[in-house]
Amino acid sequence: MEKEFIFGHQNPDTDAIGTAIAYSYLQNKLGYNTEAVALGEPNDETTYALKTFGFEAPRVIEKAADEVKAVMLVDHNEPQQSVSDIDQVKVTHVVDHHRIMNFNTADPLYYRAEPVGCTSTVVWKMFNEQGVEIPKNIAGIMLSAIISDTLLLKSPTTTDFDKQAVEALAEIAGVDYKEYGLTMLKAGTNIASKSEEDLIDLDAKSFELNGHTVRVAQINVVDLAEAMERKEAFLSSMSQASEANGYEMFMLLITNILDSDSEALVVGSDETKALFEKAFDAKLVDSEVKLPGVVSRKKQVVPPLTEAFEG
Amino acid sequence: MEKEFIFGHQNPDTDAIGTAIAYSYLQNKLGYNTEAVALGEPNDETTYALKTFGFEAPRVIEKAADEVKAVMLVDHNEPQQSVSDIDQVKVTHVVDHHRIMNFNTADPLYYRAEPVGCTSTVVWKMFNEQGVEIPKNIAGIMLSAIISDTLLLKSPTTTDFDKQAVEALAEIAGVDYKEYGLTMLKAGTNIASKSEEDLIDLDAKSFELNGHTVRVAQINVVDLAEAMERKEAFLSSMSQASEANGYEMFMLLITNILDSDSEALVVGSDETKALFEKAFDAKLVDSEVKLPGVVSRKKQVVPPLTEAFEG
Repeated sequence: MEKEFIFGHQNPDTDAIGTAIAYSYLQNKLGYNTEAVALGEPNDETTYALKTFGFEAPRVIEKAADEVKAVMLVDHNEPQQSVSDIDQVKVTHVVDHHRIMNFNTADPLYYRAEPVGCTSTVVWKMFNEQGVEIPKNIAGIMLSAIISDTLLLKSPTTTDFDKQAVEALAEIAGVDYKEYGLTMLKAGTNIASKSEEDLIDLDAKSFELNGHTVRVAQINVVDLAEAMERKEAFLSSMSQASEANGYEMFMLLITNILDSDSEALVVGSDETKALFEKAFDAKLVDSEVKLPGVVSRKKQVVPPLTEAFEG
Repeated sequence: MEKEFIFGHQNPDTDAIGTAIAYSYLQNKLGYNTEAVALGEPNDETTYALKTFGFEAPRVIEKAADEVKAVMLVDHNEPQQSVSDIDQVKVTHVVDHHRIMNFNTADPLYYRAEPVGCTSTVVWKMFNEQGVEIPKNIAGIMLSAIISDTLLLKSPTTTDFDKQAVEALAEIAGVDYKEYGLTMLKAGTNIASKSEEDLIDLDAKSFELNGHTVRVAQINVVDLAEAMERKEAFLSSMSQASEANGYEMFMLLITNILDSDSEALVVGSDETKALFEKAFDAKLVDSEVKLPGVVSRKKQVVPPLTEAFEG
């Protein structure tokens, strides 16, 4: 069978990379010939998870069509979050947990999305449905993905399925998920060693909102005050990135993973900043606003922004 | 739990109506509050299937938002094939076996599509995955849907899953699927009693192909020659429908269900007719062309048209 790539979104997080590895394992067991690849280097958190469970980082690709005719997507579907030549390959499978946007195909395909906290939770269900045994290291990387996406089951995106998956996978992986999870999340919060330019690109996604290109980046920290000391440098990097890439608004969500609160920094035109304020019913002061309880870009940021931009 | 509608596409066929009934039964067993409705009256074939297994035809709706806030779609996703106010309701679930086109959501949702012959085959899998027993009459209507969409497992869209589903459902329903299937298909081939205007609208779908609105209708017959005697009247009705609705091309696929061959009638501009000829590498003579072996709009008509219109 001809080889297909499996990959998550650009600026990959632990779900994008971990689920690509797990889904590739499952699909190969079911008779497909797949290779898990990534659209970027793993971040510190993902590197910690990969190392803990004995995986090498998947090789990084920018284009797919020079190597394969068909691909499978995990943890994303929006073309601008995917490989740059996505229109040159056939998408045969998608496993995801996001909204569907601008994803069009010429042919029927396999598409499995569920409104759960993590793509690995869907893949965990698929292992069970297919009766395929989950190896210890695959369980570990899927567990890491779910802990990452749900901030240890505390994000409002968390469902009962995520909890069941975490319990089951932690047992297979042989770890105490609370202890391992906190250590893994903290491994991703070391912002002191990174430039503002790098930090605003680590976990960033672009969205087309009613014709406007909006960038939403997120950083996890354990000390919000420490991060906000670098506010002016963040704003400057965000403005530069917006100019270089045509973002009409750039929002940086800085999330304290310990108490599940966030502050947002926003740069953009007066029009888009007004739409931001409408979306969150909150006033930006010096480009800054507290967003108590907001930790999920997917569930608490993109839907209100979408509504405000379309309204 | 607040009520949601479940429905298939406009101009419903046996899959659209039968799968809505079966999926509604499954979802209600799983704790949802759903009602199966339809976006049109059942055709002769569907009426026969409903009657055989003791179902009333689902009530017909044109709009959803005045009655429910959320809906579940089966057997379609493209907005122009759906309820007219689809943008006024939230789509929470989709079960389908078509390409994905212009289907956009603000929020994550449950989406399950597989490249199999019939949506009921996917729902059959879901019954099994969830461990929900399939009642005799639900098995019968799902069986009817699969027989209809796969032309008794002879369409090139047919997969091993469709065959497995047909075997399993026929046993539960207590029918010889070949005998029942041929009788059911023949019930849908009585074109003598219907006007050309009705026939070109019975099983018709609109597609946006690179900005062009293209209408593709299909009629099942047991005698191609008998149907072709009405060619001029078909062409005239197709031209009138195109003018009234802004279709840039109208294609009528007349399929002989006994030998799995088709003839196509096409009206449209010189440009769209040239694209049609490019798509099928075949010459229209007097608006007519034989398409041997072509029986599936989804697999053998829409993909080549999409490619030709986009190339």
